[in-house]
Amino acid sequence: MGVNFSFEVAKTDAVGARRGLLATPHGTIETPVFMPVGTAATVKGLTQEALEQLGASIILANTYHLYLRPGHELIRQLGGLHQFMSWRRPILTDSGGYQVFSLAELRKITDEGVRFRSHLDGSEHLLSPEKAAEIQLALGSDIAMVLDECIETPAPRDKAEAAVRRTTEWAKRARNYVRECARRNGEIRQWQFGIVQGATFSDLRRESARQVAELDFPGYAVGGLAVGEPHAMTCDMTGEVAALLPADRPRYLMGVGRPEQLADYVTLGIDMMDCVLPTRAARHACLYTSEGRVLIKNARYAHDRRPIDPACACSVCRRYTRAYLRHLFAAGELTAAILATHHNVHFYLDIMRQIREAIEFGNLAKFSSEMHARYVAGPV
Amino acid sequence: MGVNFSFEVAKTDAVGARRGLLATPHGTIETPVFMPVGTAATVKGLTQEALEQLGASIILANTYHLYLRPGHELIRQLGGLHQFMSWRRPILTDSGGYQVFSLAELRKITDEGVRFRSHLDGSEHLLSPEKAAEIQLALGSDIAMVLDECIETPAPRDKAEAAVRRTTEWAKRARNYVRECARRNGEIRQWQFGIVQGATFSDLRRESARQVAELDFPGYAVGGLAVGEPHAMTCDMTGEVAALLPADRPRYLMGVGRPEQLADYVTLGIDMMDCVLPTRAARHACLYTSEGRVLIKNARYAHDRRPIDPACACSVCRRYTRAYLRHLFAAGELTAAILATHHNVHFYLDIMRQIREAIEFGNLAKFSSEMHARYVAGPV
Repeated sequence: MGVNFSFEVAKTDAVGARRGLLATPHGTIETPVFMPVGTAATVKGLTQEALEQLGASIILANTYHLYLRPGHELIRQLGGLHQFMSWRRPILTDSGGYQVFSLAELRKITDEGVRFRSHLDGSEHLLSPEKAAEIQLALGSDIAMVLDECIETPAPRDKAEAAVRRTTEWAKRARNYVRECARRNGEIRQWQFGIVQGATFSDLRRESARQVAELDFPGYAVGGLAVGEPHAMTCDMTGEVAALLPADRPRYLMGVGRPEQLADYVTLGIDMMDCVLPTRAARHACLYTSEGRVLIKNARYAHDRRPIDPACACSVCRRYTRAYLRHLFAAGELTAAILATHHNVHFYLDIMRQIREAIEFGNLAKFSSEMHARYVAGPV
Repeated sequence: MGVNFSFEVAKTDAVGARRGLLATPHGTIETPVFMPVGTAATVKGLTQEALEQLGASIILANTYHLYLRPGHELIRQLGGLHQFMSWRRPILTDSGGYQVFSLAELRKITDEGVRFRSHLDGSEHLLSPEKAAEIQLALGSDIAMVLDECIETPAPRDKAEAAVRRTTEWAKRARNYVRECARRNGEIRQWQFGIVQGATFSDLRRESARQVAELDFPGYAVGGLAVGEPHAMTCDMTGEVAALLPADRPRYLMGVGRPEQLADYVTLGIDMMDCVLPTRAARHACLYTSEGRVLIKNARYAHDRRPIDPACACSVCRRYTRAYLRHLFAAGELTAAILATHHNVHFYLDIMRQIREAIEFGNLAKFSSEMHARYVAGPV
């Protein structure tokens, strides 16, 4: 495990934000990176050509969804996820755990794994650490996540403790499963990342980080955050964990965040992020701009000849007006979601470009405070 | 009326099919042409960039929809429909009549016009020949249609007779309204087409054609066909009318047709067509191919690694498999409609390219019979 993979920190700023290069068999990613979410082997509303045009260097796909439909065996038979969806750049898959906990019915969790019913047809399934790894090997993603135990927030301490213990146990089993596969079948072109849990307890977070780091994964994720707790708490926990994870491995904060928060996480040493926010908000007519959110259905935009964001260079802002976008949303047109998604994903990827540049020039703090000011002061 | 406009027949084949060039202020159109339908100032699922890439040389927009939402005055204030939707090529608008008859509630038709309630909010409106012309002038389409009386099929003879009489009266009023506008405001950069009615009565069709042709429009449409009658009847009526319309003016058969029927209409001397079929069918997972329809949701395509149409050169067929398209439709993904619409519109525009070439080489009859054979014999 590891051929064609590498991670290299090119520059670390005064507070610990890093620029790096993450190489995979499907291409090299500049970090810090934002990964658009392509749940069911598509980023909703964007073709793969559009994602390439936008400069997305890696996307995330959801193992839970693909396992249930169309099925990982079908995708394996068709040459893996890259070939199935005709996406030639890197893909990260989650373990499916988070979706089982948030979408599926009748979950029953034991040391073996988590038993659940599909939200699609009610069929019963068992997701174990080995199964989650097996599915992701079939999908052939560049980066796979171990199965972890996700718990609700706020969590009682004893439950958080048990989840940390189980998450470490499962991480070990997932790692051993893939090692065994490699021993039997030869080289595996996939990196497997461990996940740190621990809810909102600093000492549990630290303990989890130590335990998982000991398992020597090529990269580490921080899970179970940004699930309802205040942003300051997310930052506290992320900082505690990042400080304990090996500096030469990529750090991935799962499921974040709002536009103005991205730089905060990078400041804490995070290299990778993903979030449905830019795509989901776009479909709900919420557009992100350099001056804050634009709720484009608002009547004030009916005659507005300006682009969504006058400071934006995306192909939507170069061509279409707010008045037109507002009309498309009012009329419930498909094209509204296409254009809005394109813009929002561009906006997120552009923030990351600016963040990487700010690290280079040592002014990430300034960029971060400006983003916060705009998103508090800007029009809603 | 007429500056920057012209129509020139470049070649007529042995049976009367023509190739021509229709020049407008927004560009020149090669005829015969198929016009994708952009009802509410967007072709559902396609950006304007995609339409350009597909080679759409003219699109159709619906006056009824744009009048109700966002309103023609708003579009006028924003610089007209081309600027509103950022489409620089020609646009044809219908009169709104057909939609009033098919979508609106509580229609009441008098010599004055047609009174109706909006299907959106129940508000009451009067669409008169003058009003339909005024709205289209505000939209600034390159080609506008006169308001005609659309009747149900099959229609009793007396009703069809009355509709022919009223259609001619209304055409005269629409023409005079625009002439009066031109006299008062100077040059109008819009061509206005007359419409022939007459249901399925040959003599009424001929009478209507004679009456409308006498009004000396720069182009003529055949309306009220392809509304449920057999294809042979559509062809009979179209043939009767086309023979009586001036050979030096474009002829537009409204609302047609199925892929295998397009060449039949061209054979009868038709130069322009429009239809929601390629776009609507795409959204319902019905894909058109050189071998017939592919209902892509069918389980037989789950493992199918072929493109939608192996003979197709569109960007969707060059990149994606049937298995992937089937998955996207099964998962209800937005991207399914985007890719399917792109392919179907390419397929229609490509048929027209082949038809124009067949006219050039004098083998349209062969092309037509091959299309019919494929669409009867091909997989459904």
